[in-house]
Amino acid sequence: MALIVKKFGGSSVANAERVNNVARIVTDEYKKGNNVVVVVSAQGDTTDDLIAKAKEINPTASKREMDMLLSAGEQISISLLAMAIERMGYPVVSLLGWQAGFQTDSNYTVARIKRIESERLKAELARRNIVVVAGFQGINKYDDVTTLGRGGSDTSAVAIAASLKADLCQIYTDVDGVYTADPRKVKNAVKIDEITYDEMLELASLGAQVLNSRSVEMAKKYNVELEVLSSLESKPGTIVKETVKMEKMLVRGAACDKNVSRISVVGLTDHPGTAFKLFNALGQAKINVDIILQSVGRDGTKDITFTVSQDQCADAIAAVEKLKDSLKYSSVAHDETVAKVSIVGTGMQTHPGVAAKMFEALYDANINIHMISTSEIKISVLIDVEKADRAVEAVHDAFVR
Amino acid sequence: MALIVKKFGGSSVANAERVNNVARIVTDEYKKGNNVVVVVSAQGDTTDDLIAKAKEINPTASKREMDMLLSAGEQISISLLAMAIERMGYPVVSLLGWQAGFQTDSNYTVARIKRIESERLKAELARRNIVVVAGFQGINKYDDVTTLGRGGSDTSAVAIAASLKADLCQIYTDVDGVYTADPRKVKNAVKIDEITYDEMLELASLGAQVLNSRSVEMAKKYNVELEVLSSLESKPGTIVKETVKMEKMLVRGAACDKNVSRISVVGLTDHPGTAFKLFNALGQAKINVDIILQSVGRDGTKDITFTVSQDQCADAIAAVEKLKDSLKYSSVAHDETVAKVSIVGTGMQTHPGVAAKMFEALYDANINIHMISTSEIKISVLIDVEKADRAVEAVHDAFVR
Repeated sequence: MALIVKKFGGSSVANAERVNNVARIVTDEYKKGNNVVVVVSAQGDTTDDLIAKAKEINPTASKREMDMLLSAGEQISISLLAMAIERMGYPVVSLLGWQAGFQTDSNYTVARIKRIESERLKAELARRNIVVVAGFQGINKYDDVTTLGRGGSDTSAVAIAASLKADLCQIYTDVDGVYTADPRKVKNAVKIDEITYDEMLELASLGAQVLNSRSVEMAKKYNVELEVLSSLESKPGTIVKETVKMEKMLVRGAACDKNVSRISVVGLTDHPGTAFKLFNALGQAKINVDIILQSVGRDGTKDITFTVSQDQCADAIAAVEKLKDSLKYSSVAHDETVAKVSIVGTGMQTHPGVAAKMFEALYDANINIHMISTSEIKISVLIDVEKADRAVEAVHDAFVR
Repeated sequence: MALIVKKFGGSSVANAERVNNVARIVTDEYKKGNNVVVVVSAQGDTTDDLIAKAKEINPTASKREMDMLLSAGEQISISLLAMAIERMGYPVVSLLGWQAGFQTDSNYTVARIKRIESERLKAELARRNIVVVAGFQGINKYDDVTTLGRGGSDTSAVAIAASLKADLCQIYTDVDGVYTADPRKVKNAVKIDEITYDEMLELASLGAQVLNSRSVEMAKKYNVELEVLSSLESKPGTIVKETVKMEKMLVRGAACDKNVSRISVVGLTDHPGTAFKLFNALGQAKINVDIILQSVGRDGTKDITFTVSQDQCADAIAAVEKLKDSLKYSSVAHDETVAKVSIVGTGMQTHPGVAAKMFEALYDANINIHMISTSEIKISVLIDVEKADRAVEAVHDAFVR
């Protein structure tokens, strides 16, 4: 008898018909003789509706009360799903975050799971109940309700799978797996059968919106095997695990991130510690810097160029401008018409010439590269945003076809 | 410093404007230097909407899952009210039933409160927080969510007031107090300043829908002083307590119950134990019998007539028909075109002639009496339903004017 954790997002339980569809998937698994824990998010637009209600009353409501409000959403979806499973004649029990033992820290709206006190979960499974758990929520040491923030239900599912040592944690979405590139934009994109945690993390952080990074990190830490699959079609998805069988494919996927700003600090006097001062100030302002490029000019000054996400651009410029007196630079410029295109693959670690092949593909497509960043399993380039879709297709097809 | 418990029903928190109105009432009390606990129900139609969602998925859903679903309603209203109070600049915390310590039995959908573990409530009050508590809900010994059934939020408020030994428990409604009769129907009805628990119980059970009987019983048991008042107008309501100052008014109010069926078992052979067998069978079928009348015919047979609520009429007739062989009666008849009109007042215990005055008023109004029932503080008569409103006005004006 295997133990399977299944997670369904808000669109999968948006109405009665979809709730019944999820109940069928769950009971089909149970019928095989397996134990099943199901983690669900709030129905469709419930969370947005609740946020609108709150905003009308108090646009600056405390995070504690926001968590109290929003956690009602999953309470509704778990009970409705349990009712659908009851109607199909199977034993089932729904559990809120605190009933399922989710203990978190006290960072309301973005809480982190500290531990799962899993006695109740184990007792319900021992009674052969299907257990439906509210994702996204837990309680802190004061017995107050907390929520886990964006993608929190994925994290809830992986945490339960880790805690109960489940055989598999299945994340159901509206796509049938992870692709080598966004299939809506790259016509030759193919579904990946297996991918490593590290590759998935690079793709997740690059904007392949299938799995939340935190849940992949947790899966890697506790060695939980994940499967990303469709709730609408019955076919295998993409397995995410520690090591996958080597294939001829060097590169696992290509991705594009258009939420990028490039900031240039021009004409810096070349003193020791200049870069340290600059990036230390940005770090203190909680700004995540991605690609960094430093160039030396003929007059002995230098330029430092770096990228941040567009929503942090204004804060980053403000932080740099505060350093005007101590750094003695001539100007700050920024550009939001750029995009980051990346290829990811464990295979490239041991294969020379991958970067050269990527640059060749971009050259052939007549696309100019502004900045380059590499890691063991990733190569990223910064290019003009209007050429981004063409660039992804070009580098994807160079490796995947 | 006094401790005041205030309860607001679903219509009082139905939208943002009304939530803000409740927040003003609550903070006005707090500003006086008092400690305040607020109990709220789910917003307006939330409960009906959730029931409709459940019915669509499973018309025979388990009561446990119904309670899980419905309790989300108060979770939404407590957090929204807390946000409104925050916005006005006052310290506030919302608590779910389990966080406020409501321990109940396991009769899902109609659970009874066993005790309130009030440490958290006391700690929040000691911090001078306004405490907003979800009415209608608690948890049982398995840590599962339960609800208290109809009028449950009134009971929650009284239970908190009893547990914390509050100075006053105010039940806010859309009327400004308890009236001597339904003011929409009896033009001379007047608001009652003070009424005893026993009088209120008789009026509550007679269909004066202001206060739930269970909450009045609990208030009587723990000697909690209640006030019924309007959430829309700022003026004193009706105080409910153990003893009230004697007034010239013998009768505290007149009420009418149209949810009545009269059942007659005709031509019973007159054996000992006939009445016992009949009402024992009805009791076992969980049927509440109200007024009973027995009459002896000339041929040595007798008739027994009794009243039940209309929703129990079919069950009562079925129970009687099962006894056909052992009771040897000739027929069963029923009539739903009747109503029960009652007057209630502690004063009538010590005043002779009250019943006569009531019957005179009905005689003057040309209304025929089918059955009569009396207790120490109540006299009820069964009459034709189409004369009910006229009868209430006649008896009301005979005593109250």
